[in-house]
Formats: sequence, C-alpha cells, structure tokens
Amino acid sequence: MRAAVLHAPGDVRVEDVAEPAITAPTDAVIRLAATCVCGSDLWPYRGVEPVAGPTQMGHEYVGVVDEVGSAVASVEPGQFVVGSFVASDGTCEICRSGYPSSCVDRVFMAQVGTQSERARIPHADGTLVATPGTPDPDLIPSLLAASDVLGTGWFGAVAADAGPGRTAAVVGDGAVGLMAVLAARQLGAERIIAMSRHEPRQRLAREFGATDIVTERGDDGVAKVKELTGGLGAHSVIEAVGTQESMRQAIGSARPGGHVGFVGVNHDVALSGEELFFSQVHLHGGPAPVRRFLPGLIDLIWRREIDPGKVFDRTLPLDQAAEAYQAMDERRAVKTLLTV
Amino acid sequence: MRAAVLHAPGDVRVEDVAEPAITAPTDAVIRLAATCVCGSDLWPYRGVEPVAGPTQMGHEYVGVVDEVGSAVASVEPGQFVVGSFVASDGTCEICRSGYPSSCVDRVFMAQVGTQSERARIPHADGTLVATPGTPDPDLIPSLLAASDVLGTGWFGAVAADAGPGRTAAVVGDGAVGLMAVLAARQLGAERIIAMSRHEPRQRLAREFGATDIVTERGDDGVAKVKELTGGLGAHSVIEAVGTQESMRQAIGSARPGGHVGFVGVNHDVALSGEELFFSQVHLHGGPAPVRRFLPGLIDLIWRREIDPGKVFDRTLPLDQAAEAYQAMDERRAVKTLLTV
Repeated sequence: MRAAVLHAPGDVRVEDVAEPAITAPTDAVIRLAATCVCGSDLWPYRGVEPVAGPTQMGHEYVGVVDEVGSAVASVEPGQFVVGSFVASDGTCEICRSGYPSSCVDRVFMAQVGTQSERARIPHADGTLVATPGTPDPDLIPSLLAASDVLGTGWFGAVAADAGPGRTAAVVGDGAVGLMAVLAARQLGAERIIAMSRHEPRQRLAREFGATDIVTERGDDGVAKVKELTGGLGAHSVIEAVGTQESMRQAIGSARPGGHVGFVGVNHDVALSGEELFFSQVHLHGGPAPVRRFLPGLIDLIWRREIDPGKVFDRTLPLDQAAEAYQAMDERRAVKTLLTV
Repeated sequence: MRAAVLHAPGDVRVEDVAEPAITAPTDAVIRLAATCVCGSDLWPYRGVEPVAGPTQMGHEYVGVVDEVGSAVASVEPGQFVVGSFVASDGTCEICRSGYPSSCVDRVFMAQVGTQSERARIPHADGTLVATPGTPDPDLIPSLLAASDVLGTGWFGAVAADAGPGRTAAVVGDGAVGLMAVLAARQLGAERIIAMSRHEPRQRLAREFGATDIVTERGDDGVAKVKELTGGLGAHSVIEAVGTQESMRQAIGSARPGGHVGFVGVNHDVALSGEELFFSQVHLHGGPAPVRRFLPGLIDLIWRREIDPGKVFDRTLPLDQAAEAYQAMDERRAVKTLLTV
C-alpha cells in the first residue's frame, strides 16, 4: 500500500510499504477515507525532533473498518469510524477516570502512522467510535478534525474551564487554537479573545466564534488581554503552541484563580515555579484525552451544529503529502487534508 | 511596644518600636494574644531572601481588636479575631471569586509584621473574622494555626482535590505539610501518605490522619508512592516545601488526571514544560486564600472537631523570639508559638 514516509528533515516521500495486519486480538485494520498533516508532524519534519530512519507518518484518521481481531466487540467491518490519535484500552483506571491519552497501555498512533491507505488501530474497542452511518462526504473533514485538532482544542477549552460568563483567551492561531475558539464558543464562553497576527486566521477565528482579536505577543499580548479584562486577565486561557513564549503568555494572560489549559506539545519549556506560584492559576494540559470527547463531538458534527472541517484550507491526494507538509511548514496552509 | 526585628540573617532581636496606629479608615489595630514563627520567615532568616535593613517580622496573628477606622463595619473593639496572613479588601472581583490572597489591593502581613504586642491590620472588614466569643485559652494555638499554616495546608488539600475514595500524598513534613494531612482527612481522603523521614513528625502526621508513611525522597519517593497506588500514583498530592526537588517529587507522585496542590513558596524552581505536559496533572497553588476558609476552620476549631494547635511543639514568650527562630532553623521545633 501507499504511505507517507519521512526519510530525513524536509524529506517526505509517498511510497509502497507493507500492508498492515491484525497482530493482536484487540486490533482493527481500517481503510482510510481521509487523513491529514498535524502541526506536531512538523516537529520531526523541521528536525526539531530527531528522525531515526524512514518513519511512516500521521496519527489522524477516519475510515471504514476492514478487519477486526477476535476480541473486538464494539466495531465491525463496514462501519465508518473515527478514532483518537492515542489508542487506549478503555478499561484501565486512568481511561475510566477520563484520561485515555494517558492509558496504561496507550499507543501513540504517530508510532504506527496513518498517512496511508490502510492502518492498524490497536485497542480498537477503546479507541474507535463508529458514526451513526456512512457520512455524507462533506462531513468527512469535520469528522477527521475530531480525531485530533478538534478534540485537542476542546480539551484545552475544558481544561481552561471555559464557560458561561467567562472570558476565554486563545494563544496560538494554528488549527488547534482555532478549534479551541470553536470549543470555547460551544461551551458558552461570553467573550473569546483570539491572539493572532495573521489576517486569514483571524477571519477563521471570528467565524468559529472569536469576539476579539489581539495581535500583540509576549508581554505586550498579556498587557492587551489585561486591558480587555478590567486589568485582571482572562478567566480561561488556552495555550495551543507549546513554546516558552507562548506558555508564559498564556499564564500571564490568566487572572488569579483562572485556568490555563495547555495543549501545545511543549518543547524546551522551563516554567518558573515562582511565577507560577504567584500567578495563582490552575494549570492543566497534556496530550488530549480525545476519546473522552469523541461521542459528543461526532454527535455535534452529525447534527451539523459545528463545522470544524473549515479548519482545512487545502486538500490534496495522499500522493502529494510532500507538498502538504511544505505548505504547512511555510504557513501557506493552516491544515491540509489528504484524500485517500 | 515590643516587636521581633530581623537585622541581618540569623540576627533576630526583640526591641521597642513605634506603636501602630490607624492610617486608613479601613484599618484596625489589634492587641495580639499569640503569634508564631513560620517556615517562610526562615527564608530571610537564612539569608535566602535578602534582608533590607531592620525588618519587623511575622504575619500570623490572633488577638483582640483595640481600635478600628471609621469605615470598618464587621468587627469592633473587644472582639477576638483571627485574620489571614494576607490582608484583602473582600470586595474586588478576585476576592469574590475566592482568591483573597491575590486581591487587587492585597497587603502581605509580612510587610507589616505581627510578631509584636500590637499590629495594624489593613482592610479589616475583608481580612478579620471574629470568633463566637472569647476563646478558651487552650483553643488559641488552633485559632492561630488557622491564620496561616492550617489555612495553607487546607488550600493545598482543596487544590489537590482531596476527597472520598481518593489517595492523597503530602510532600513535606513541616507545619503546613502536617496541616495538609489534617485537611485531607477532614475532606474525606481514603488514604493519606505522609512523606517524612523524621520520626516525631511521622508521629504527628499519624495523629492528624496519615495512614501511610514514605521515608524515601525524590525519584525513590515517587517510586514508593506508585508502588502503594497500583503503579498509578496518588489522586491528590500536596506540595508543602517549595524546592525544585519537592515540586518534581509532587508532580511525579500524582497519577495522570490527578491534582497537585502546591503551597510551598517556590524558590529557584524551574519546571520542565515537557514533564508537566506528559504528567497530565492538574497543578494549582500559590499563596493560600486563607480568608476563604477561615469561617469554616474557626467553626471546626470552636466545636473541637480538629486540633491543629498540636502542630506547635514549643511555646515561648515574644521576648525569646530569637530562640524561637533558632529552634525552627535547626529543626528542633516544628513550629514555635510566641505568647504576647
């Protein structure tokens, strides 16, 4: 089958690889309808994370079940499914407490690769959710978004305690940040400040529910958020970048007693304990427990109450994955969908 | 009047200072019944925090109101009062949201000094709580504890979400750590692991409700807590030290999705964003909003349901403040009460 393989920083090739197969009774194999390129795929693509030889890429996926292992009970061949970017058993104490992304048996799908024609999904029962039927084609981008960026932005907004009567600020205007805007809106936040300096992304943020745009960054961005919130800071801040500057900007933008949900995968970040102590914020984040939110998100999409698929501003066939990576790396695209 | 004054690291003297006076209509002046030495007083005493000339010390206090400013409505001369180590207006949005220790008009009482015969209390209405009557003398240590260490340990346990069905671990066996054990017990935690290597403190921890003692520290301490919790870590961890090692130990001891309440004033702590991200804990702390808890704590003490005063293992007259500091610095005392 065809799959996107990263050979070295900047070098993505679509080539023939071995077909996936059931290796454990809890596995499923799916035929992908669509996959996509994630901001976190850019870390190895840019050489920030090491690349240890040719690696199949991708961790977002929707498609049709082809085959299931003998222990799989909740999905069957022919069903259209959405799954999380982390496979989880669904039965351990951590899964049951709502944190499947920290499941004791978790498998990061990035270690399997889903930018391919078919993919093996470990822990199928704990990972996949079947849609109510075969989706209309125009719903596929939104369902694909649920697999990671929507679920991640949603977790950020939940971790930031976004809700009625509250002001939420979102640091980062990538796909996850934009999805966090949508989530804050759905959760009922009264005012949503998107921090973005890119006009097309500002427009998308407004479409998803942003009420204010702040273009300043760092300390200037913090000052602007405080100015907009009576000097106090936002109740809820979602951090969707993962750098030292964005983490400090997020913590600084929250009021004492406020909540910061951080979902940007942190790279080379050192937080000052003193600053965190006196900020008096709640800080919570990590790899999003997307599976917790999937049934609800699929329902919202199925009923066409949200349209997160708009976050994809480019669509290419899988064979052009190299261009998909390059477009995102050069910020010519927010997020690129790959049809399979 | 007499007051404890820090002249240089290690040099505390009790000497005559100016009498306090009402300087704002919202002030009160109280005559102290008792005060004490806090772990955080040891930072400047040890020279870890700079000492800028002679400084009146102390921020914990109980006593009788002597005089009030014209705008004070909730307390009156003759009443016995307990107040927080942070004076707060009680009316700003941050106070009303439950975070008086981050009040927009806050005054840290450490900047005023309460190891003295009398003390000025700013924002008397927002800061002081009158007891139901004149307390029996044996209740005074417990009421004094409520002013800081009990309220701080309580906040740590609340921030750590300690409660029924949960395992709580407490990092730090100083007065705040011991009070956190008591708080976790009151909040209903099923199992309480005190991390302590000092036999007398272990004994006190058990009296306050600890069910398990872990003597290991650092990575070994984390491993031991995991061993006691099915490999997962505690649901709730209270950090009551404030060092790099104790913060890492606390975060490492919590399970994914668990809560870390950190109330040790952080000094030279840098937290790895990556570790925090993948730990998936909730982190919340800072200067405890003691005033939020005071009415409830006074009630528990008044009804003799808790006896936090046991945390004081030494009592000296104010004039012997120098010895009180030395005993705590040398860990000969957990916490020293000063009678006035």
